[in-house]
Amino acid sequence: MSLNRVTIIGLGLMGGSLALALKRAALATHIVGCGRRQVVVDQALEMGAVDSGSTSAAEAVAESDFIFLCTPVETSIQLMREIAPHLKPDALLTDVGSTKQSFAAAARKIFGAQASARVLPGHPLAGREVSGLEHATDDLYSGSVWALTPLDASSHESHGLLRAALEAIGARVVCVSPEEHDNVLAYTSHLPQMLSTALSMTLAQRFADEQNPALQIHAGGLRSMLRLAASDPVMWEQIASSNAANIAEALECFEHELRTLRESLGKPDFRHRFEAAREFAKLVKS
Amino acid sequence: MSLNRVTIIGLGLMGGSLALALKRAALATHIVGCGRRQVVVDQALEMGAVDSGSTSAAEAVAESDFIFLCTPVETSIQLMREIAPHLKPDALLTDVGSTKQSFAAAARKIFGAQASARVLPGHPLAGREVSGLEHATDDLYSGSVWALTPLDASSHESHGLLRAALEAIGARVVCVSPEEHDNVLAYTSHLPQMLSTALSMTLAQRFADEQNPALQIHAGGLRSMLRLAASDPVMWEQIASSNAANIAEALECFEHELRTLRESLGKPDFRHRFEAAREFAKLVKS
Repeated sequence: MSLNRVTIIGLGLMGGSLALALKRAALATHIVGCGRRQVVVDQALEMGAVDSGSTSAAEAVAESDFIFLCTPVETSIQLMREIAPHLKPDALLTDVGSTKQSFAAAARKIFGAQASARVLPGHPLAGREVSGLEHATDDLYSGSVWALTPLDASSHESHGLLRAALEAIGARVVCVSPEEHDNVLAYTSHLPQMLSTALSMTLAQRFADEQNPALQIHAGGLRSMLRLAASDPVMWEQIASSNAANIAEALECFEHELRTLRESLGKPDFRHRFEAAREFAKLVKS
Repeated sequence: MSLNRVTIIGLGLMGGSLALALKRAALATHIVGCGRRQVVVDQALEMGAVDSGSTSAAEAVAESDFIFLCTPVETSIQLMREIAPHLKPDALLTDVGSTKQSFAAAARKIFGAQASARVLPGHPLAGREVSGLEHATDDLYSGSVWALTPLDASSHESHGLLRAALEAIGARVVCVSPEEHDNVLAYTSHLPQMLSTALSMTLAQRFADEQNPALQIHAGGLRSMLRLAASDPVMWEQIASSNAANIAEALECFEHELRTLRESLGKPDFRHRFEAAREFAKLVKS
């Protein structure tokens, strides 16, 4: 199988790794790389990640069959609006944004009745704390989950091709609605991120600066809990504002559970809650 | 240097690893291993971790110069009371408990004016999620922090020997008071543990069971945030009740920071807070 001609807009960690993965698996006859800065486009060409390049999105998509928007949520929405008039009529547009409802709503607005055929929003769960094309690897998506969030239940040949290509680069595809996706992610991704960031804020308050020798008295657990706090603020600003209601819901649930746990400190309940949480955590699939 | 004759009470992950590390660095002329169950004592002998063994703590300490209590906090306090009458007058007693105030208070009560000379409480920050002698390794403490919490500022030769031995097995020794230790740990260890456990409780509520396919839609971040939730409930029950006031303080600070972060969702403040937290997290030394 082949996606024929592919355009990847956004040549950072996600887009660059996707280009390398499609190349390695020989899933495209030609890959057009599109970035805002010529220097990054040139770098992608030099790495052999793409076959041709452009800094113009409209130009880059003109003859392609599959378009991947590999930019943050809000940028992808703007780009979709910009490139819509330049797409081939049977081209399929997808993205890698961390939230899906706002992108899905924009797709419905731009493409009307055609939306579900022409846009299949996606979200590969394969972020890292580093970013940029220089960190791109051809196995970033291997073994990771790639969520696809169809706009309705109708089936389209191009959707099947996209799914097969993602599986061919090693991703496990999971389909859910955009609404379910955003609520699930608020719990499994955005909540953990907020906790890590708020933990770091708490430590900054308590220890004033990271040179405080008392802060040395910690074990590996602290580092694993602070790992997410090192994530990209610009990306998270977009995620947080595009999913604020779901995140607020997840935070409220969490605050309730934390209060319950706190009130059980020193009581027999504590061990029961701790044990139930332990069993659940052990079984969460990697 | 040598600690001469050493007794290690509690032959789990911590005690077993300490025995192996002292052996490897040839820091003792003889190591007595003491466990409640004969089968574990026999296992330690077979592994070559100890030179002789006993299931009686009173018997095991009788001729030793350095005694390590490698059991959970409350058990170590009971054992200290039990072995006190059987110690050589110049023997130094230390422990590996996760909180230090209750152990320090018990030492003062048991040994009176002699307490600071005869007891030097300790806490190696080298836990793992696994436990038991079968997981013991001779490098568990290599490169990790080992907190020592002297009962007062007076200096004793045996204290210097203990410190040198810990450094010889690769630990970085940090000295703080028992009070400061417990407050610091509430922030750097107990708070992260509570967050991981409460996160798992929240997910169990949202997804009902770990087989829910939606729960697959998560990235590596979730696993790192749930890692601590798999820790030992019995150990944590003892830690939580022996440091409840400090943990409650740390939780209150955290709840305040989380509320601040939540209220900034979708506002310019969000990025500033996120960036400050990111800088702090990046600089926390490993």
